[in-house]
Amino acid sequence: MVRTPLDRAGFEEFLTESDAPAAPGTSFFDTQLGFAVRRWCAPVLGLEPHCPPDAYLARRGELGPGEVTRLMLRASGVATLLVDTGLPGDLLTPSELAEAGRATAHEVVRLETLAEHAADASRDGHAFLVELDESVLRYTRSAVAFKSVAAYRHGLDLAPEPPGHAEVRTAAVRWHTGRQHGDRLRDPVLLRHLLWSAVRTGLPLQLHTGFGDPDLRLDRCDPALLTEFVRATAPWGTPLVLLHGYPYHRNAGYLAAAYSHVYADVGLSLTHTGARSWSVLAEMLELTPFGKLLFSTDAYGLPELYVVGARLFGEALSRLLERWTAEGAWSGKDADRVTAMLAADNARRVYGLGAAV
Amino acid sequence: MVRTPLDRAGFEEFLTESDAPAAPGTSFFDTQLGFAVRRWCAPVLGLEPHCPPDAYLARRGELGPGEVTRLMLRASGVATLLVDTGLPGDLLTPSELAEAGRATAHEVVRLETLAEHAADASRDGHAFLVELDESVLRYTRSAVAFKSVAAYRHGLDLAPEPPGHAEVRTAAVRWHTGRQHGDRLRDPVLLRHLLWSAVRTGLPLQLHTGFGDPDLRLDRCDPALLTEFVRATAPWGTPLVLLHGYPYHRNAGYLAAAYSHVYADVGLSLTHTGARSWSVLAEMLELTPFGKLLFSTDAYGLPELYVVGARLFGEALSRLLERWTAEGAWSGKDADRVTAMLAADNARRVYGLGAAV
Amino acid sequence: MVRTPLDRAGFEEFLTESDAPAAPGTSFFDTQLGFAVRRWCAPVLGLEPHCPPDAYLARRGELGPGEVTRLMLRASGVATLLVDTGLPGDLLTPSELAEAGRATAHEVVRLETLAEHAADASRDGHAFLVELDESVLRYTRSAVAFKSVAAYRHGLDLAPEPPGHAEVRTAAVRWHTGRQHGDRLRDPVLLRHLLWSAVRTGLPLQLHTGFGDPDLRLDRCDPALLTEFVRATAPWGTPLVLLHGYPYHRNAGYLAAAYSHVYADVGLSLTHTGARSWSVLAEMLELTPFGKLLFSTDAYGLPELYVVGARLFGEALSRLLERWTAEGAWSGKDADRVTAMLAADNARRVYGLGAAV
Repeated sequence: MVRTPLDRAGFEEFLTESDAPAAPGTSFFDTQLGFAVRRWCAPVLGLEPHCPPDAYLARRGELGPGEVTRLMLRASGVATLLVDTGLPGDLLTPSELAEAGRATAHEVVRLETLAEHAADASRDGHAFLVELDESVLRYTRSAVAFKSVAAYRHGLDLAPEPPGHAEVRTAAVRWHTGRQHGDRLRDPVLLRHLLWSAVRTGLPLQLHTGFGDPDLRLDRCDPALLTEFVRATAPWGTPLVLLHGYPYHRNAGYLAAAYSHVYADVGLSLTHTGARSWSVLAEMLELTPFGKLLFSTDAYGLPELYVVGARLFGEALSRLLERWTAEGAWSGKDADRVTAMLAADNARRVYGLGAAV
Repeated sequence: MVRTPLDRAGFEEFLTESDAPAAPGTSFFDTQLGFAVRRWCAPVLGLEPHCPPDAYLARRGELGPGEVTRLMLRASGVATLLVDTGLPGDLLTPSELAEAGRATAHEVVRLETLAEHAADASRDGHAFLVELDESVLRYTRSAVAFKSVAAYRHGLDLAPEPPGHAEVRTAAVRWHTGRQHGDRLRDPVLLRHLLWSAVRTGLPLQLHTGFGDPDLRLDRCDPALLTEFVRATAPWGTPLVLLHGYPYHRNAGYLAAAYSHVYADVGLSLTHTGARSWSVLAEMLELTPFGKLLFSTDAYGLPELYVVGARLFGEALSRLLERWTAEGAWSGKDADRVTAMLAADNARRVYGLGAAV
Repeated sequence: MVRTPLDRAGFEEFLTESDAPAAPGTSFFDTQLGFAVRRWCAPVLGLEPHCPPDAYLARRGELGPGEVTRLMLRASGVATLLVDTGLPGDLLTPSELAEAGRATAHEVVRLETLAEHAADASRDGHAFLVELDESVLRYTRSAVAFKSVAAYRHGLDLAPEPPGHAEVRTAAVRWHTGRQHGDRLRDPVLLRHLLWSAVRTGLPLQLHTGFGDPDLRLDRCDPALLTEFVRATAPWGTPLVLLHGYPYHRNAGYLAAAYSHVYADVGLSLTHTGARSWSVLAEMLELTPFGKLLFSTDAYGLPELYVVGARLFGEALSRLLERWTAEGAWSGKDADRVTAMLAADNARRVYGLGAAV
């Protein structure tokens, strides 16, 4: 969550995955996400649902970012936060988020950021690899999961097997030598080395799949491209959590059905599809075994995204399960059980978060 | 629209994207489009909805093609027609369509047809390139958009950057030399040259994506394949309008969300999916910003396709927005606003058509 | 159908396409298929719908596999069975299934199994090819269709044209020489030879497309990959039946719409999507001409899968057509006619099964 007040342009930037201004004559508020923010978040600030964007932003400005963050996080009903700490910008830390939301927070470590920090701190490629190994080991003790954004940096069409030691060393030296401070890691050998370093720890590994900002090329983020990696990592048993997936979320569901150690997570797929999120969730519930679908909001930048993500998920799931129960396709008891699984139990089990309070 | 009377076989040919007869024991009337024609167009001819095909065709024959065209165009409610004039066959011109439909008509110029005409009129490859340049320039003043069917001629997996001058000249000479009068343009260098010639004019460029007739290979028409071209053309700001998209219409929506100058158009995706068109439109409304989704019918050959395209779009949009409003996901005011955007305002803005009368 | 009693683990194995145990803390009963079995099959055994898995399995154990098979097959309402006899394991034969279900059974011959049996029976690669030719010819007289699982063995991205004689002979000798008894056929030249051997007989050829067990890589089973093969086989007119297709079932529908000799079959797409099967069927009914969509259950291992496949198809189709009729999109008469086509008439015509009794 950003710490500073946002004007309309600044706010709109977080309503889109685009990195450019809205097209002439259009506004990022005129999207499913923009409408969902006005619907669900306006009442949290004491306004009518669907009040005009400017009225919403005026009220938001009066309250200030700290108060809005507190109100949103508490209204979201999310009790346990898993926070990716590898995003750029001056964002709240997990413990600040926990305090604001009266919640528990855990850290998810973004592998590529970890590597870039290790590179910044190292004098050469060899030192970089040593530092990287130590960082991974260190976070294995404090974080609940690793996360990879290889989808953004290269695409998921990476060679599936772990790169050899010599290959990694060569790539590390080459990359470190040519690197300017702050450069992003895009080298495929090092991206694979990161993935395998994480797999070897046994900690769940989250993988960005499907849509996201324009850094990625959509068709190279189809989770089906991970099939060989999934097969290669099966002997390790490390949980692989496929985030988002949209519009290939049915493919993620297939992988979760076909391979023991694969899970699917709704991620930002519901947040950005608003009034249609029930239908996207329904498609995820076609093949994904009910013990293997996880909920998250992918909230980033705006605390509103916690509210929107949580409400859309809750409403979509209720609607689907009420319908399936009314039709006799599911029993009410199963519907309650699956609700608990998706909303919390699956994540608790996969990330080892312990029982509910 | 064809000028001549059609028998049953001739009529059925326009109900399908196939170029072969219907399989033994089947009829192209037994499709979503066939049912939609009987539903929506029979009443326009004074018949009961869903009357048998032969009764429909008999009535059509009595009225004659001119009268049927007038009745259908006026019943469609389409006030402004953007007509692709690059299709083969003896078809009504934009001004004839305008008169028949008491509508305004504008021309959309199909780049590949333009190039083929330029080649027919040129004595060699060099003259062809000069003539092509002049044609593009000429149409920039009279047409409202260019259109590319590179999807059909090669697939969308074209190299994204503009080809160099020498490369274009070599390709032009080679193609023109080997060409028989009437041959279609399939050379990837020249297809790219056409795309970039259009992009440089700033006039909106429509691109066929997704399904169509069997000339194309479906998986090479995924709009995601255009990602690099989209990136390369971003500095120009020329609007790229992705037509149809189905079954990759969610990918088109993603590109429209991620890149300022990209738009999506329902095209023939609704016409051919009939009773399911509301669901296809709903999927387009997941990621596509509401200011970036356009309506068209892709009507060709049969004037019935104007009625079917317009009715299916109108009914689908009403149904979705009534539902979303009833659920509280959208406000009624937003629903009205978005209806106006999709039905007319977005197209007016993108194609510079001026305000409504 | 297996002949022997199954314990819980054995039963669960047939509820999934996975070949590994369920992930820790999860059960294959917690899937759309697991819920559908409890809903539709428990009443067939005299139990309440949605009774707990253990109660269901206890009752199943009391009745014994023979009685359960009889009850399920008769309850399914399937009057004509087309049985793929190429699956491994000690399974009921078509005539045993026919007797258990008081139904008529026909054989579908799996090409790859045929080839493996021919290889087992031949002393060298040349003898293998002779034996294979004779087997194909022999089955042309007794079977109603051939089936290919090239999707599993290689993926559908095979070269489309028939391999030359010399190429086939070389591949046959190489494969036969290196082969251990029981080895599966994965050689792409021989897989293509099998496809073309079948196409030349004119008997319908079923092709596995879309999801299945983890032997396949999902994105290499997209039916769109068959486009060139479809074009190459068009002159033969041999019906190609694309099975399953999910999650690429819209692509299968496109091919069925665009090419005369292509058909789509719901296969296991409905069985595994349970409460969502109406939606998957609806997507298949977007582009697939109504005379070209077939019903099958893909039942294998558990007789429950006949009941689930038939019920989900029947319920989904009723629901969709009732809705479309109520909305006025379809006439009641058309709905009845299309129901008969999908449920039986299309399959009768394509497989030459003669009229209904």
